[in-house]
Amino acid sequence: MSMPKNPVENLATLIRCASVTPAEGGALSALEAMLKPLGFGIERPIFSEEGTPDVENLYARLSGNGPHLMFAGHTDVVPVGDEAAWTHPPFAGAIHNGEIYGRGAVDMKGGIACFIAALARHVEAHGNPKGSVSLLITGDEEGPSINGTVKLLDWAASRGEKWDAAIVGEPTNPDALGDMIKIGRRGSLSGVVTVHGRQGHVAYPHLADNPVRGLMTLVDALINPDFDAGTKDFQPTNLEITSIDVGNPATNVIAARATASFNIRFNDTWDAESIQAEIHNRLDVASASERYRKGRKEPIEFDILWRDRPSHVFLTHDEKLIGTLSGSVEAVTGRRPALSTSGGTSDARFIKDYCPVVEFGLVGKTMHMVNERAALADLEMLTDIYRRFIEDWFAQG
Amino acid sequence: MSMPKNPVENLATLIRCASVTPAEGGALSALEAMLKPLGFGIERPIFSEEGTPDVENLYARLSGNGPHLMFAGHTDVVPVGDEAAWTHPPFAGAIHNGEIYGRGAVDMKGGIACFIAALARHVEAHGNPKGSVSLLITGDEEGPSINGTVKLLDWAASRGEKWDAAIVGEPTNPDALGDMIKIGRRGSLSGVVTVHGRQGHVAYPHLADNPVRGLMTLVDALINPDFDAGTKDFQPTNLEITSIDVGNPATNVIAARATASFNIRFNDTWDAESIQAEIHNRLDVASASERYRKGRKEPIEFDILWRDRPSHVFLTHDEKLIGTLSGSVEAVTGRRPALSTSGGTSDARFIKDYCPVVEFGLVGKTMHMVNERAALADLEMLTDIYRRFIEDWFAQG
Ligand SMILES: [Zn+2]
Ligand SMILES: [Zn+2]
Repeated sequence: MSMPKNPVENLATLIRCASVTPAEGGALSALEAMLKPLGFGIERPIFSEEGTPDVENLYARLSGNGPHLMFAGHTDVVPVGDEAAWTHPPFAGAIHNGEIYGRGAVDMKGGIACFIAALARHVEAHGNPKGSVSLLITGDEEGPSINGTVKLLDWAASRGEKWDAAIVGEPTNPDALGDMIKIGRRGSLSGVVTVHGRQGHVAYPHLADNPVRGLMTLVDALINPDFDAGTKDFQPTNLEITSIDVGNPATNVIAARATASFNIRFNDTWDAESIQAEIHNRLDVASASERYRKGRKEPIEFDILWRDRPSHVFLTHDEKLIGTLSGSVEAVTGRRPALSTSGGTSDARFIKDYCPVVEFGLVGKTMHMVNERAALADLEMLTDIYRRFIEDWFAQG
Repeated sequence: MSMPKNPVENLATLIRCASVTPAEGGALSALEAMLKPLGFGIERPIFSEEGTPDVENLYARLSGNGPHLMFAGHTDVVPVGDEAAWTHPPFAGAIHNGEIYGRGAVDMKGGIACFIAALARHVEAHGNPKGSVSLLITGDEEGPSINGTVKLLDWAASRGEKWDAAIVGEPTNPDALGDMIKIGRRGSLSGVVTVHGRQGHVAYPHLADNPVRGLMTLVDALINPDFDAGTKDFQPTNLEITSIDVGNPATNVIAARATASFNIRFNDTWDAESIQAEIHNRLDVASASERYRKGRKEPIEFDILWRDRPSHVFLTHDEKLIGTLSGSVEAVTGRRPALSTSGGTSDARFIKDYCPVVEFGLVGKTMHMVNERAALADLEMLTDIYRRFIEDWFAQG
């Protein structure tokens, strides 16, 4: 059995598995084949829920005497998009000009490939780490995220698994390897505001109540003023209107209803409950406004529907985890990474309920795009960063 | 051949023809049967245009030596809506509690039934009028209005027809017969504004450009400030946003595009060209605003598409026509009708290019609704109003 020491070979193998979410595509089996020679015990639980596709996941454990490190990630990938626009096939792992092409190259088969190579190098040089290492890999990160990390964590914890720290291998660097470690994330909350007006003819607006006028007033209140100016660790809270819809094709009819969908990314000024309360309050106050409504006195009739579950804001304060990873990044890249809480949510938001978690992986520039690709030099450097981290983190006991 | 002197019988006959636009449904044939005994020459031209249904129309002429009066209207009706909700069948002409029920009872088979009865009574009492009378009846008023009045006017004019005045028999009275004669209409113009943003992820709004922010700014400029305060003869100009659409189902995606559809009803402060210029100017000025856009400096990228043809504003100044009709209304109802330019457009906007035109008919309250119906007393009074008008108008030579 050969040791999976080469991150480029590991990644090419994974790219060749067409694991477009929720398909396993052979990716977890390929992972299993790489981890077996390192001595991992491997389980592949399948989770189901009515109305969503069944998803296969992987939990691999290498047991040792000492602290327990989790590496978390996903092998599922987003669809290829316009396949004809790819200069190299999205599931071939072609290498051109020092870069390896393929869907998932950076998000995030690359991160997994490097972590496995790092561990193989460590085991070859020093034997097994002085502690336990687990890989928690889902096939449902790019999908509905229902039969993936949440259930896999619960499944493992219910069997007594406990972790001391976790690294998520998502691409965290905006421009160059070493830019950024993510140590937390803003919370996220989505809702739909519906304004109920009264249908009528445009020539008789006084007999109707145009819901677009009310919606303008409420959307204004959602956007202005700013929620906060940001905090020491976080960007300002930001609300975006993702859609605004009436769907009335008739040019002479005032519609009965108008909706605005929004998503808010909130920082540690708030929690999910207080930001919901703030939004309710803004809408209640605005509903009495006559702005845009030509002096109508009755309050705007509206309702609000909260979508999905909120993602809670979190910030990791584990000095051993953050300091060791920062040091490894600096030793390899020569640059001190920013400790950031910017950007979108990831599965780290679920892991943070079990142990301290940070995220560090490749450069994200081409993720989800046509010609997604990773520099071979970055794969080698990331492998070296993970290798140093494993060595230093377990050395601290 | 019996004379069609009874408006209720005329109307019942017309209601029993299920002439839901664009179907003729036997309504024009029924009209022909009523008009023949009065000595009318009748033609029924069919107009066609690719992409629209063929529509049958009727032009009836009773020639005499003197001025030429046109009565204009339509026999097509809107669909019945929730048929189960009608207390009497929509195409039966049932009479209950002094009212006749049926789709088109007031809009506007009732007006036609009364005018024919009025003319029959005049002919029986005094012989033919001292001039010509034409009925210009379309089957395409409630439809796309392409193969109807516009083409029928052009067809008749190209054969040398000239008219001195026209009455359109649409239901013009809001509450009671005698309320209102319409002597003009506001213009109407519809457009769609599209804001082009840049798609992206809600967590990275600085990398995207949310078009809803730009659209809010432009819609604000469309609605505020008021265009004018109204004029001596007209209500204020009013703009309504009829639809506003993004159509983005994803909660974490900023969309690429957002549209707002609007309709503006403009008074004689403006013409179609100047109101378009005003709207262009408002949008151009607003496109430089950073309101809602978090300090973005580049102008909002947008385009505007004007829909259909504009309807031009018009006001009729024919003292003989207006004065004679007002006098007839007052003589029968005891009330002086308001001379109004309020409300929606009608085919009068096309007729005004050929001769002075006013509109007067039944009470509009139940038009387009379930249980559309006309009071028998109103039908008798409207017949009397039209009869007096015919007598007095032709008497003035
Ligand atoms: Zn990912
Ligand atoms: Zn009508």
